[in-house]
Amino acid sequence: MTDFGFSIEQERGAARAGVFATPHGAVDTPAFMAVGTLATVKALDPEDLQALGAQMILANAYHLHLRPGDEAIRELGGLHSFMGWDGPILTDSGGFQVFSLEGLRTVSEHGVEFRSHIDGSPHAFTPESVVGIERNLGADVIMQFDHVIPGQSDEAVARDASERSLRWLARCAAEVARLDSEEGPSKQTLFPIVQGGIHASLRQAAARSIRDSGDWVGYGIGGLSVGEAKPDMYRILEVVDSELPRKRPRYLMGVGFPEDLVEGVLRGVDLFDCVAPTRMGRNGAAFTRDGRLNIKRAEFRLDKRPLDDGGGGSACRRFSRAYIRHLFMADEILGLRLLSLHNVHFLVRLMRDARDAIRAGTIDAWSREWLARYLSRPVPTE
Amino acid sequence: MTDFGFSIEQERGAARAGVFATPHGAVDTPAFMAVGTLATVKALDPEDLQALGAQMILANAYHLHLRPGDEAIRELGGLHSFMGWDGPILTDSGGFQVFSLEGLRTVSEHGVEFRSHIDGSPHAFTPESVVGIERNLGADVIMQFDHVIPGQSDEAVARDASERSLRWLARCAAEVARLDSEEGPSKQTLFPIVQGGIHASLRQAAARSIRDSGDWVGYGIGGLSVGEAKPDMYRILEVVDSELPRKRPRYLMGVGFPEDLVEGVLRGVDLFDCVAPTRMGRNGAAFTRDGRLNIKRAEFRLDKRPLDDGGGGSACRRFSRAYIRHLFMADEILGLRLLSLHNVHFLVRLMRDARDAIRAGTIDAWSREWLARYLSRPVPTE
Repeated sequence: MTDFGFSIEQERGAARAGVFATPHGAVDTPAFMAVGTLATVKALDPEDLQALGAQMILANAYHLHLRPGDEAIRELGGLHSFMGWDGPILTDSGGFQVFSLEGLRTVSEHGVEFRSHIDGSPHAFTPESVVGIERNLGADVIMQFDHVIPGQSDEAVARDASERSLRWLARCAAEVARLDSEEGPSKQTLFPIVQGGIHASLRQAAARSIRDSGDWVGYGIGGLSVGEAKPDMYRILEVVDSELPRKRPRYLMGVGFPEDLVEGVLRGVDLFDCVAPTRMGRNGAAFTRDGRLNIKRAEFRLDKRPLDDGGGGSACRRFSRAYIRHLFMADEILGLRLLSLHNVHFLVRLMRDARDAIRAGTIDAWSREWLARYLSRPVPTE
Repeated sequence: MTDFGFSIEQERGAARAGVFATPHGAVDTPAFMAVGTLATVKALDPEDLQALGAQMILANAYHLHLRPGDEAIRELGGLHSFMGWDGPILTDSGGFQVFSLEGLRTVSEHGVEFRSHIDGSPHAFTPESVVGIERNLGADVIMQFDHVIPGQSDEAVARDASERSLRWLARCAAEVARLDSEEGPSKQTLFPIVQGGIHASLRQAAARSIRDSGDWVGYGIGGLSVGEAKPDMYRILEVVDSELPRKRPRYLMGVGFPEDLVEGVLRGVDLFDCVAPTRMGRNGAAFTRDGRLNIKRAEFRLDKRPLDDGGGGSACRRFSRAYIRHLFMADEILGLRLLSLHNVHFLVRLMRDARDAIRAGTIDAWSREWLARYLSRPVPTE
């Protein structure tokens, strides 16, 4: 825990530019973390991530528990060594995944029984077992096991899940302490997760309860971007921002559309993650400063321009839209790689630009202009 | 044509170490050329190829004529610019591809009518039209349009195809001359292809006829590794070696198993190409100095060793067999990339090592030892 720290270099309204220190290195915030669900950021190589300036990445406890198994990864030296990434890693607990297994899971206060999405085999997650899995994986930051609900859930459902998540947080922390005393202290830190759906009073209560339960290294904000309206998400971020300690990093889980990152930064968020840049990239969608572009469209057949004029990433420097379109039309793997590379670079750079604007005191004007340009062109029908 | 040249640095028996100069740079021979059928070496990035030491690569006239169209590529600045590869490129004429379209093609002296393997649309290739396509693509070396037959064809079939290929060579050369006088000279060179199946007298006649028809920059040897027995292939290489001018590079088309490369070098071959390293890589097979390895096998689940001890490639330096196996079991794209990277590097390095051995005068002992080790372990049942 002493290997972790957060220093704020500059604040401007709720937005802040900081540095999050971890045992595997520092992360300049605000930052976007690419998602390597199965210990690989899909279609990319760790060398690519390093080259494009990614500092911290994610992996997923649910998926790695099923394949190849968290004990296998422990035996192979832990996630950093296994996947060839020496920088900071965060593991999500798998809460989101097991609660998405509608019809394949049973929830109780004890935990969740579920069937594997791969082969239907039975499994059970408890706060304690998930901490054990995340310890085996060995990421720097491990997320608590939480109860995730759909974005439009009513207040009773949201309260039940939020309060259960708080009780599970205590059990996660107790299990960390038990393992620390049994095996010696790990170099990991546990992040709590603020839940409560789109209900301000629940979010407020959850944030206060977590804040009062200890001085956490950082705070997760979960259960957003799961089907609720965008204004609801922005409103909840403002509520949570005012309740969480400002001196710690806040991590908005699963949020990765460019406009949401900018709106999140303006509301005091420091860390983001999402599969969007790689998943959309594999489907042929590229982020550009003028909005989203579908590279498969016929209009790009002879287009010599890069994906994003002045984008500056490896794909933009080297290849035309026409070439990348050809790769997609011919089902070539390099196409998946280039758009994934481009989109991850786009978000990493977006957060670097936001950071520079906060430090320069220009974040308000910068974000207004950025959003106006990005949202000015309607997303083409795909 | 003046931009091309071949200098032999050292000979040892039939084997030679040389340098093949092209308008886009020099190639140290013997060399393996990776195949980028659709203007991309599958699962790899041009930067990868450069980093692993590949100097010259292939693309395919048949495939690129269908997608995205050779005229589109010409409009986009030619293959080098289109695919982001500034080194030497060779295009195969598509003879192998159209003759593989059994049931979808009609052959006459004029050329071949065929239906696209993608959408069944009708097309026709003639020696003249193929030269036009290859000129649009703009590779450094363009291969003649030839008549390719199965490896076990009888002498009558083989004679007919071989003699037609010779007549088509003359038509290709005439078309190059016509276009040169019409549009100005291109910076391309046309390679003839020696055909004749496994019939020594036909190969001899074809090689002599080609040799007598002009002083070609280099010579293709086609129609091998297409189903014939390996001893037949090696015997034919010896026949062809003794008939072709020694001062020019010889290119053995479509041959890419490690043992065949070594046997080819010993018989005077300078250039090789094959889809084997990338296709086998995508199927989970890795070349190692001890033979082939199927990474999906359960025995590699916890194997911390690199694919090939001392292999020295980017995949071996960074990842364990256990990790790469995990990627394959989880259908992750990085697995396809890493084994493709590994296998192409393996062949590029194999040819570099052979070159060093020729220059050091140790090629006989080196190749004996190399083959003994590579062939000592039976290929596991997959």
